[in-house]
Order: sequence, then C-alpha cells, then structure tokens
Amino acid sequence: MDSSSRSGMTPPPPEASGGPHPADLFDRWALEALRRHAGPVPVRVRLAKGPDLSPVSGPAIATITINRRVTLVNLLRNPDVEFGDAFIAGDLEVEGDLVGLLEAVYRAQESAGELRPRHASFSHSPSESRAQIHQHYDVGNDFYRIWLDSQLVYTCAYFPSPSATLDEAQVAKMDLVCRKLRLRPGERVIEAGCGWGALAIHMARQCGVTVTAYNISHEQIAYARERAAREGLRDRVAFIEDDYRAIHGSADAFVSVGMLEHVGPADYQALGAVIGRVLGDGRGRGLLHFIGRSRPRPLNPWITKRIFPGAYPPTLVEAIGGVLEPVNLTVLDVENLRLHYAATLDHWRRRFLASAADVRRMFDASFERAWRLYLSGSQAAFMSGSLQLFQVVFAPAAGNRIPWTRDTPGEYDVTGACNEGGAGLDDQL
Amino acid sequence: MDSSSRSGMTPPPPEASGGPHPADLFDRWALEALRRHAGPVPVRVRLAKGPDLSPVSGPAIATITINRRVTLVNLLRNPDVEFGDAFIAGDLEVEGDLVGLLEAVYRAQESAGELRPRHASFSHSPSESRAQIHQHYDVGNDFYRIWLDSQLVYTCAYFPSPSATLDEAQVAKMDLVCRKLRLRPGERVIEAGCGWGALAIHMARQCGVTVTAYNISHEQIAYARERAAREGLRDRVAFIEDDYRAIHGSADAFVSVGMLEHVGPADYQALGAVIGRVLGDGRGRGLLHFIGRSRPRPLNPWITKRIFPGAYPPTLVEAIGGVLEPVNLTVLDVENLRLHYAATLDHWRRRFLASAADVRRMFDASFERAWRLYLSGSQAAFMSGSLQLFQVVFAPAAGNRIPWTRDTPGEYDVTGACNEGGAGLDDQL
Repeated sequence: MDSSSRSGMTPPPPEASGGPHPADLFDRWALEALRRHAGPVPVRVRLAKGPDLSPVSGPAIATITINRRVTLVNLLRNPDVEFGDAFIAGDLEVEGDLVGLLEAVYRAQESAGELRPRHASFSHSPSESRAQIHQHYDVGNDFYRIWLDSQLVYTCAYFPSPSATLDEAQVAKMDLVCRKLRLRPGERVIEAGCGWGALAIHMARQCGVTVTAYNISHEQIAYARERAAREGLRDRVAFIEDDYRAIHGSADAFVSVGMLEHVGPADYQALGAVIGRVLGDGRGRGLLHFIGRSRPRPLNPWITKRIFPGAYPPTLVEAIGGVLEPVNLTVLDVENLRLHYAATLDHWRRRFLASAADVRRMFDASFERAWRLYLSGSQAAFMSGSLQLFQVVFAPAAGNRIPWTRDTPGEYDVTGACNEGGAGLDDQL
Repeated sequence: MDSSSRSGMTPPPPEASGGPHPADLFDRWALEALRRHAGPVPVRVRLAKGPDLSPVSGPAIATITINRRVTLVNLLRNPDVEFGDAFIAGDLEVEGDLVGLLEAVYRAQESAGELRPRHASFSHSPSESRAQIHQHYDVGNDFYRIWLDSQLVYTCAYFPSPSATLDEAQVAKMDLVCRKLRLRPGERVIEAGCGWGALAIHMARQCGVTVTAYNISHEQIAYARERAAREGLRDRVAFIEDDYRAIHGSADAFVSVGMLEHVGPADYQALGAVIGRVLGDGRGRGLLHFIGRSRPRPLNPWITKRIFPGAYPPTLVEAIGGVLEPVNLTVLDVENLRLHYAATLDHWRRRFLASAADVRRMFDASFERAWRLYLSGSQAAFMSGSLQLFQVVFAPAAGNRIPWTRDTPGEYDVTGACNEGGAGLDDQL
C-alpha cells in the first residue's frame, strides 16, 4: 500500500522493522476510529487480548472490551447496528455505566446536529403490523411480569413526585389520561392499541365509561379479556383483537397510548380518518400519547432491526400534520413527559437487572443482554433528549364543548347567539 | 341573450311582457346568489329600495340591507372583500346579530372544508414590517384606551372563570405566562413584540426579573418607556424600538405574545435563529403566544387588506416546524385558549360599542364601522373555530432543567450518571 493513500478510514502501513507489530497498529487505528465515531465521550475502548490502546484522560464513563478482532472490523463497517449485535452475542462487553455511556454518545450525536432525513416510509399492511407486534409483545406475559408494574402497563408512567413508586406512577398516568379526556359516567370510549388492558379497565372502573379497546397482540388481548372477566367488567369493556384500521362506530372519546410509534408516517392519514369517523358528530375529544422526536430522524437502526421492526417516533409536526390536520381536529393541549419516561425506564431497567438470572434461565444469555441494552439505551435516549414523550389532546376544530381551563372540571358549551351590545358571550357561560 | 346560456352565474333573461321588471329579476337572482355564497345560514338579504327578495324560512340571525345596486354588483364579484368595504362605506347595513351572522358564515365555510393552500409567502423587510405595524398600532393610544383594559393589553386574556373582568383576565394572562416560564428573581428575559409594555413591566415587578423588550411601534414604545419610568422600573426594563431580527445577547427566557402573526412564514426560520441565539447555552426556555389555525389557510382577505396587512395566522405545524425544529427546540407544553379570545373580544367589542359615538367624533363614521366589523368578525372567527389561540412553551431538546410536572414549582436537573444497578435516575432527583 502506498503511503500517499493514508487517510481517515485507511489503516496505516507497517512501520520499519523494529517498530510495533502491524496488527497492533491496525488495532490502535481501529479503536481510535471507533472512539471518534462515539464523539467527544470519555470512554475506553480495548481489545480483550492486548493493552488498552485507546486511553482517555481523566475518569472514563465506561470501558468497552471487544473480545474478537472480527467484531472490531464489523464495528468499523456499521457501528450503530454492530455495537448492539456484538453486545447481544457477548463479543463485546461494557464495564461501568452503560446508561451514562449511551446518553453521552446520544448527546454528542444530537449536538453534531445534522438533520438526517427519515427513511422512506412504507405503509404497513395489517398482516405486517401483526407480525411486527407479535415479535415484541408476544414474548410471553411471564417475562413482562418480571419487570413491569403489577398492572402490566408498558408505556411512560407519570410520577406526581419523583419518589412515587412505579405502581403509583402508572396509576397516576391513567388518572392523568382520564382527567385530560374529561371522561364522564356513561360515555363511550374507543381505545386503539390497548396493551394488556390496564387503561381500558381503569377508565371503565374509575370513570364509569364503556370502552371498546383494540389490539393486534394475541397474548395481550387474551390476558386483558381474562382480567376484565375476573374483575366483573365484561359488560363495560370489550377487547377486540383487530387492527386500528378496523375500528368502526362513534364514541365520545378516542384514546391511544403508545401505538402511534408503530403506525408509521405512511399510515397517519388512515389513522386520522379513523379518529375523524369516531368523533364524526363534531363533538368529543381524543388523546394521543406517543414517543416522539424534536426533529425528524429514523429510529436507532439497531432498535429497528432487533427490537421494534417498523417503528418510527414522529415529531409533533409529523403527528399533528399527518393525523389531525387533514380531518380538521385541532390541538387543545400538549404535554411533554420526557423525563417521566427516563424515570419509568430506570424503574424497568433496575427491576429487570434484579431478575437477570431468571431471564437467562427463561430464555438465554443473549436475550437477557438484548433487553438490557434496549432498556439502557431507551433510558439514555430520553435522558439525552434524543427521544421525547408527547401527550396530545385534541377535538374537532369548531367544537365549543371543550374545557374552559385546565383546572376547570367538565366542559362548557359557549355556542349561542351574541347580540351586538346585548347579551354577549360571557352571559352565555 | 339566448336562454340556452342560462346557468349559475348568468342573470335570467327578461320574462314575457306582463311579468316582473327585468331589474327585479336581476336583483332577485343576485340576492339569491349572495345568500348561497354565505352558505346555509338563515340571513335575509335585501335592497334598501324594494321588497325583501330573499326570504328565509324561520327566524333570521340578521338582515343585510344593501343601499345601492352597484354594491350588489361589487359583492357578486368579490364578496369576501366587498362585504367589509361596503360595510365601512355605509353602503350595506346589518340589523340583528352581526357576530352570530359572521360566526354562522365562518362555520359554513369551515365545514365546506376545502383545504385552501395559503398564499405565496413573502419575507417582510424590517421597513415593510414597520409600515405594517404603524398602520394598525399607531392609530393613537387614546383610541385603544377607550376599549382595551386599563393596562392596554392587546392580546388574548385568560379568564380563570368566565365571570372575571377584562382587567382581571389580562392580569391572569400575564401571571399564566410567568408561571409557564417559571421565572425566578434575577433572571434575564427577552421579549419580542411588547405592545404597550404591560407584560414586561409585570414580569419585572412580580417576578423580579430584568427584561429587554423589543417593538417597532413608535407610539407603543414611547408609552411603555414613560410608564416604566413612572413606576420606577427603568433599571429593570429596557424598551428598545427595533425589529426582532435585531435582538442580540442571551437570556434565561424568551417570550413573545401576539407577534408571530405578523412575522409571516417566510421569516419563521429567522425568528427561530434569533430564539436559538437567545437560548444559546442550551438552557432556558421560551413561550410563543399566537393566533393560529387548525389547517393552513390565508387570513380573511378583507382583514389582510384593511386591518392587518402582511399578517398570517400559522398552524401549530407551521409554527413548530418553521420556528422551533430547525434550532432543535422541543415543545414542552401547548395550551389552546380559543374560547378565551372569543371572551376577550366580546369585552373589547362591547366596550367599543359603548363608546362608538366618541370614536366617530375622534375619527369618522367609516373608521368606527371598520373597527366594529373587525372586532365582531374576530369574535366570530374564534367562536367558530376558524381561528385558534396557541400558547407554546419550549426548551432546548436536550436540556434537563425543565419542570417535573405542571404542578411542580421550579425545575429539576436530572442530568447525572446512572450506574447500572446502582444509583439511578430517581436517586438523583
């Protein structure tokens, strides 16, 4: 190799005899290239057999040990995906603070700041959606029971104070959703993507509404039905194993918590049409709760490949513009609960770690490592602002049956004639 | 004229002798065409000299009387603009409920529902902006004193209860803005578009912050400076007669109430760059309060022509996507206060009507009619959902010095290492 070709991604040529071994030179170059890819992050990167060739000044957040040289080569080729795959395979280990390391890397990537356009978006057919959802949510309820709260709520919790327990915070989140929707006894609610049914059951029991809840995860629907029957709520909550596109009928409120991430931008308009039909009489209101972004970017490629195929976290602009605007639904209220998802994931991750040995017994070591990385990386993404969590309340743009203030219970109908100089708006209220 | 050419916009031919006079036939056709344009709205439309040729079944909201036949012709040509111009000129009068009539027309237009694209958007140069703002805001402080609240706040108020007075509601709005911005003593605030200075003075006095406030209306800035001096706040509030593009320096908070409507989409990115610089250290937070839409549409053409040249009410998508996203600011909170603007306008309009004779003396009858129509039409637009009012709170996407919940005073810094299995997020809080 001619020395004139020496550049960023080309290994240096062997030195004159008496210098370091060529393999050492390659290793040193490759480890440095990897560390540069991670950004200005104090992390050690080393090969298991060999000295620490990539020292950092000051204390490191973590040390990445790469067990095989082939892993090093793979990492150079496609670091974002190979890091995760090597971690699962055990070809790469992290000592120290995994969440802190990933948070620092995400922060560096965010502040590098290029606006990467999102990947071309393809519509998910109902059967594709079913396969994607099956892969993640039908792993087995026993597994989720290990580290979720007692009601199996697999979405961002709401901690009234940071010291609330996970169970308290999931109940508080469901209360928050009910409060934002202003549910009243006797109203009809349609829920799209209902998980194990906790919110549907909570709404029926706490607010006296009737709920029709949809989900395409077979295991979750079976669990939810069984629970509703056990709690004597079968006449008030119907769980339907079907796609959101199959939703029919109208309701006083539409709610969807943690489903929009799985819909994909190509189908936002289809979802909007469904919501528009549900709230078809120009009344009612709805709530979308979803993982989002501050700028459009594809989901982390390893997460897309191994954990959530087909998933995409939208910006507010994409969600509002794609789902709500075309059917003239207007935003009444948005709340960003990003730090609450970081706190939720911290609970999940620690509960998961406390039972890691059980998980390895139920599945295997690579399954345990995959979920450990996924939970750690997700917590880091919310800590670093790479991911956001939005709750969006909306209603038909022209409807006046909307809350007067956030603090006012119920709603007010201010529709009515305003005679010039005579009875005016404030006389109607 | 051949009878075969008879169609929607062509007057009918004269009937055989012994039938009605041809002018009557034209009138009847023209009045019916006008009423069709208004949509399914129970309104009578008649010529001053002649019978009511356009009867409605049931009670009418209002009766429109057209005083000259030439006005009828103009209305057919360009109804949206000519209605306002004829109203100003006194060539057209409305008896009955003007707000109710306009609300019904706007509702009909909204539910007709075609998504009209907004007009091509041109950047406003600072001197154009100055001219546009001068035309409306420099009419004379004495005029605004007649019908605004005692502090001259010319933006949507916040009524804690519908029975609050206008003065109470404007103070409550300023308190709401301070609360959402979590202002603390000693912090620095930059305000863009400060009107007569009420909010800047309120923030300085109630929250102990220092404020630098910008405005290009000469009369408003002169008034604001005089008031700050009178109230002994000259060292804490600086009023600068300049364009938002001239804002320099950094601050803990950025706020702009009622200016974005005047910026225009072509300059959203310039405004975003200004805000990004103000919050340049990745901390701080901001609030935009603006009149918006649920779907993109140009402002009413008569309002654009006669009242607010250059104005455009953006959708949330346009505002967030245009201003915040490019500089990686993320939305923390959105509140829609549409009905509060309807209530605010109801107060303004009634105070204005109570002093209409004074306004006619200060200016003339056509000025009084123009403002009566503008205030009535604006109230109708917020009642019908044709206009919305958004308050958007935002912060740098990666900043963790953000409020924990809406109810939590102050903010929390959750940044910090989370050791796997060891000290976690919730130990940091």
